[in-house]
Amino acid sequence: MKMLNLDHVAFVVADLDAAVDWYRVRYRVEPLYRETMDAEGVEEAWIPIGGSFVKLVQPLGPETPIGRHVSNEGAGFHHVGFAVVSIEAALDHLTSVGAELVDGEPRLGSRGDRIVLVDPGGPTGTLIELVELSDE
Amino acid sequence: MKMLNLDHVAFVVADLDAAVDWYRVRYRVEPLYRETMDAEGVEEAWIPIGGSFVKLVQPLGPETPIGRHVSNEGAGFHHVGFAVVSIEAALDHLTSVGAELVDGEPRLGSRGDRIVLVDPGGPTGTLIELVELSDE
Repeated sequence: MKMLNLDHVAFVVADLDAAVDWYRVRYRVEPLYRETMDAEGVEEAWIPIGGSFVKLVQPLGPETPIGRHVSNEGAGFHHVGFAVVSIEAALDHLTSVGAELVDGEPRLGSRGDRIVLVDPGGPTGTLIELVELSDE
Repeated sequence: MKMLNLDHVAFVVADLDAAVDWYRVRYRVEPLYRETMDAEGVEEAWIPIGGSFVKLVQPLGPETPIGRHVSNEGAGFHHVGFAVVSIEAALDHLTSVGAELVDGEPRLGSRGDRIVLVDPGGPTGTLIELVELSDE
């Protein structure tokens, strides 16, 4: 597997519009994409900062996984996303070294990307998303 | 203020060598710098991924701030670092919009950078570090 980039850092927020406004006023940055992911029960805003993104994630309701996360833990860091050249090569390598795969095969993420979630624990105690970027 | 890049994502780890090895085997990446910051009571490893870094931070002892963090909360996400063009311009702007400044003026960070810590709360519930990169 080859790592391309630190694609994004994802934060769960209670109110997406308020968080976008806060970043705009505080840090003078603006989302490039917004996307609702019905299957995941979230709405997302992607704020480009250099060659990476801050991804803000708001639950669509309190009974979604992210909604329960906000209720239980409040807003905060959720995961880090690394862009890889090939999601299949990454899965093959991670399987060979005994990584913990949350997703056994690639699935459709936001922006048309193909993603897998891996290694929710590990020495950094952090969920990792691997992303093969869509060319759309 | 102008944001340049998502410079780094910092994770607290209990054992820096083990975390560096884990990243090497799992994700085929390698630190570019290691640095001990006696004033902060930490040793750091900076792993480049694309144009950004994963920063792994190990406490030098249990009675340091980061040591207490590991004891209380375990390993995990600590802060996100954004590179800015000018740390003074960033501080002026953030002061003008009522941001919470952990550091009232720039101080020396690792890699010879000038840094400030800001906005430990906010809608993403996340400590933010602003970095003016050293040219050394």
